[in-house]
Amino acid sequence: MSEFDFINDLRSQTEARGYPSELLRGIGDDAAVLKQLTGRDTVVSADLLVEGIDFRRDATQPRLLGHKALAVSLSDIAAMGARPRWALVSLAIPADIWASDFVAEFYKGLLGLADCYEVRLIGGDLSRAPGHIAIDSIVIGECLSGNAVLRSGAKPGDHLFVTGTLGGSAAGLRLIERGARVGIHELEDPDVRSIQELLMRHLRPAPRVGWGLVLGEERLASAMIDISDGLSSDLHHLCRESRVGVILESGKLPIDSRVAALCGRRALDPLMLALHGGEDFELLFAVSSENLSRMPNKVDGVGLTKIGEIKPDSEGIRVSEGSRLWDLKPEGWRHF
Amino acid sequence: MSEFDFINDLRSQTEARGYPSELLRGIGDDAAVLKQLTGRDTVVSADLLVEGIDFRRDATQPRLLGHKALAVSLSDIAAMGARPRWALVSLAIPADIWASDFVAEFYKGLLGLADCYEVRLIGGDLSRAPGHIAIDSIVIGECLSGNAVLRSGAKPGDHLFVTGTLGGSAAGLRLIERGARVGIHELEDPDVRSIQELLMRHLRPAPRVGWGLVLGEERLASAMIDISDGLSSDLHHLCRESRVGVILESGKLPIDSRVAALCGRRALDPLMLALHGGEDFELLFAVSSENLSRMPNKVDGVGLTKIGEIKPDSEGIRVSEGSRLWDLKPEGWRHF
Repeated sequence: MSEFDFINDLRSQTEARGYPSELLRGIGDDAAVLKQLTGRDTVVSADLLVEGIDFRRDATQPRLLGHKALAVSLSDIAAMGARPRWALVSLAIPADIWASDFVAEFYKGLLGLADCYEVRLIGGDLSRAPGHIAIDSIVIGECLSGNAVLRSGAKPGDHLFVTGTLGGSAAGLRLIERGARVGIHELEDPDVRSIQELLMRHLRPAPRVGWGLVLGEERLASAMIDISDGLSSDLHHLCRESRVGVILESGKLPIDSRVAALCGRRALDPLMLALHGGEDFELLFAVSSENLSRMPNKVDGVGLTKIGEIKPDSEGIRVSEGSRLWDLKPEGWRHF
Repeated sequence: MSEFDFINDLRSQTEARGYPSELLRGIGDDAAVLKQLTGRDTVVSADLLVEGIDFRRDATQPRLLGHKALAVSLSDIAAMGARPRWALVSLAIPADIWASDFVAEFYKGLLGLADCYEVRLIGGDLSRAPGHIAIDSIVIGECLSGNAVLRSGAKPGDHLFVTGTLGGSAAGLRLIERGARVGIHELEDPDVRSIQELLMRHLRPAPRVGWGLVLGEERLASAMIDISDGLSSDLHHLCRESRVGVILESGKLPIDSRVAALCGRRALDPLMLALHGGEDFELLFAVSSENLSRMPNKVDGVGLTKIGEIKPDSEGIRVSEGSRLWDLKPEGWRHF
């Protein structure tokens, strides 16, 4: 199959999903065309996944990778409090990968997740690559004008919340590094189920699209970011943009229960995984006292935990652990 | 310098260029935020450049590469008859490249071209890569609602035009493959200047943004595509989408005069380079007879040539060469 046949096939698949009224032109031209709507803002983000850095080909599956490629960008749109609408995906792959079922499976995973949120694939690019796979995932979303939740709106006195649980993705990555694989396990191991679930937490993350929509549309969050690099680093980003400090209560962190159960025997520290691990793709956000009473407890079955309080900039970024108070350094993921 | 310092620096550079009123948030958050305007359509395109496939690190310069990365996407937006407004660039680079001045030079080239068209860099991603550089360039443009020029609007009887000249970029690539390099030349060679110009035609292409705007805003073109894969392949795309045929007059093709002059001694066929060479980034478009009288001869100093006529689908895609009429196969660039 030539790339042109493939793109035509992908175009048919996306067109079979119906043509949203604002989509004037999807796959099949030099660019996609979208009708702009009065009173709305467009929100756009791009995320790279590079083989050997962000994933290992032997530790994931093409369908999981397609899911994750879209999930990481959906998470960014959720962190703006916006509704994801359109996706573009650029894929650079070696010729041997093209000859396999990789691409078909990759798009199955990607389109499956897109369907969950009625997101439409409208473009991208496809290129041969000499060695490693590289994926760039672009998502365009929208929100009512002025409703985008920036990183910069947190105020001292605001309450700091996080959705879901922390540390699971990092634990899954550590298990992969130690040889664990999806679907392969020793039958005798009592931890089999937890291990498999943590692997999936890393390989098939669930973006908090529902939470993002509620927080944005109801104007509940004063500042928000998604946890991709790691709580410590992402909290630093949010505080720097808002020019505030924070006290994080370590005892309140919603550490994934499977992480706590597995870490002891494997010499991993659950608190360090939760603070610096990254790729949990939970939402970290600030809520003013006035808005507290309007906060839902759960959205789409995903809970919420208050983990700290926003302070003046001068107080720095600190963790309260028992009677101790220590500075939190940004020790999450860094590319360079 | 950490990646975060770098991104902050890039953000300062873009902010120093002034804040357009529709840009509610640029670099520095989970996503960029743009105000939607009534009566406009958004046009969006993504283009990958992969080292070892689309460029050789030893045959270009970081600043030229930054220029080209943006140029290829600007060309797509021009081919929609739209005005480019916003860019996102995702860059996957090996650690040794990060440690050099590559990234700073790359963005100098990119921002220099962006400034020519008042295009604002509003986001992207930065990732380490294990071996090769990969660049994804996303450009978002806009046009008046309904004015986007699709590939699908050509009708039998329309006139087929191309801007500028053909074959220069392909000739430049052939010269690179034979060892020619920017700035390095044998003083005795009488062709020095032509060779250097052809190299630049390949390494630093000029997108036809001005032509795209005129053709779109004045509603002059009934269908349009940019020449990236090669005239033969791109003409096939346009004809397939419009369900039409075409007769191309080979004698009318505006072959780059430097190509004709150099090819003889180097066993290259100028016509083949013009038909199948690719990366000229000229605009190929159809104009109805009613619109002919309104066509400008030049835009931004770039001329125009009528190269053929749109025919019914049943007549196929053919070249008229003297008294011969032969089928034109799509023999431009293919990744797979």
